[in-house]
Amino acid sequence: MSKQKNEDTGTDESRNYISKTGNTGRVVVSRLKTGSDLLRSLEEIIEEKGVRSGVIMSGVGLLSHAKLRNCRTLPDEFPITDQNRSYLSFEKPSEIIGLSGNVGIADGKPLIHAHLTLSYIEDEAIRVIGGHMIEGSTVFGFAEIIIMELTDIEMIKKYDEETKTLQYFTK
Amino acid sequence: MSKQKNEDTGTDESRNYISKTGNTGRVVVSRLKTGSDLLRSLEEIIEEKGVRSGVIMSGVGLLSHAKLRNCRTLPDEFPITDQNRSYLSFEKPSEIIGLSGNVGIADGKPLIHAHLTLSYIEDEAIRVIGGHMIEGSTVFGFAEIIIMELTDIEMIKKYDEETKTLQYFTK
Amino acid sequence: MSKQKNEDTGTDESRNYISKTGNTGRVVVSRLKTGSDLLRSLEEIIEEKGVRSGVIMSGVGLLSHAKLRNCRTLPDEFPITDQNRSYLSFEKPSEIIGLSGNVGIADGKPLIHAHLTLSYIEDEAIRVIGGHMIEGSTVFGFAEIIIMELTDIEMIKKYDEETKTLQYFTK
Repeated sequence: MSKQKNEDTGTDESRNYISKTGNTGRVVVSRLKTGSDLLRSLEEIIEEKGVRSGVIMSGVGLLSHAKLRNCRTLPDEFPITDQNRSYLSFEKPSEIIGLSGNVGIADGKPLIHAHLTLSYIEDEAIRVIGGHMIEGSTVFGFAEIIIMELTDIEMIKKYDEETKTLQYFTK
Repeated sequence: MSKQKNEDTGTDESRNYISKTGNTGRVVVSRLKTGSDLLRSLEEIIEEKGVRSGVIMSGVGLLSHAKLRNCRTLPDEFPITDQNRSYLSFEKPSEIIGLSGNVGIADGKPLIHAHLTLSYIEDEAIRVIGGHMIEGSTVFGFAEIIIMELTDIEMIKKYDEETKTLQYFTK
Repeated sequence: MSKQKNEDTGTDESRNYISKTGNTGRVVVSRLKTGSDLLRSLEEIIEEKGVRSGVIMSGVGLLSHAKLRNCRTLPDEFPITDQNRSYLSFEKPSEIIGLSGNVGIADGKPLIHAHLTLSYIEDEAIRVIGGHMIEGSTVFGFAEIIIMELTDIEMIKKYDEETKTLQYFTK
């Protein structure tokens, strides 16, 4: 495993990305039970296990109801605010068919940033919805979530001049 | 890499989740060919490679037809049965745009639990469907699937009092 | 970690899959900025970091517009060509809710093969689209992408007799 080129490229403001390498850590396997709030339970788990940087590898399960945030319009100027967003509650049962995201640090505490993909049945057909995971999505039966810890890297949310919001910077 | 807090929290029945850490193992890279049943081929592969616990990291490819299971209604009492589910066959070509899930052990044998996300074209627009992966989804051309083995952990399906079905417990 | 059964099973043409194991390498954590082309930036990143084989573990973020390719029809005979495909441009803001795929080698250079899942708002409802990631999807604000390098394996695109296109073979 080569370790060259591991510097954070984020200090160069002219670039259109920042990028840094870390290494694999432990893998946290969890099964959430009926009534769990998906986001809150994952926050509890990474706190309990001491995961400070990580990546969500997989999520499958069932929700009794869901709440998702999506971006509806782009602002003329940053930041993106709630005026640009839609918060939608979804009251039907839905399958978690995708969960993508990461664990970083904001204000010294672990923060999960994840997007959900959900399938459900309507008029005998399958529909899919998705969006940013917020509090308010409740497990029914089970949700199996696997998170990998990252080592030798920290993803720290800091104020970002361009977007006027917190963005992660690595170190 | 810290190893503290690695106990299974699942023995405490008052909690709304069980969670345990393992470590990364080998990574199995596979290309399925035309005519392969997606689920059956993955089962063959993990059996051949001796993977007993794992996580599906990625799936891309094309299907000639697909079969998906979704939960349509929640039961008043557990367990969830086929009366709560819809099985839908889909006869158009579709792209595998997501495959999320895990490898555990049921009855001493490796078991894949995965949810699929598929895109296809209808009326010149892109549609997306998804759900629980069951037998009956057939590869056309190729499907590239990457599975990571987990070590120092076992995800074993056992009868669960709450849901009245098999759920995984870790050890 | 057992190392048995690590041979590439792809040499046996009678099988409906090829499969080989590698090991985990570095993990590349990136944040793309406003205006980045998603695919081109990821190509730049893996080139810069020297990743030759890998798997996309996670992607979350926002796009100002997107371009996706899907398979519309199956050919009577291989290869699949653009006559079988639809290229669709999408001009609304959309959330990246899934990014699945891998990094292989074609013509000696790293190649990203990935499928995107996107959510957006239309008529106050959440819609989801997806497909093969091509050039033309532009980041707004941020996109956080995590790629794991694979070691002890190479995924090399070579001409495949069955599909009459480049497919990856492992070594």
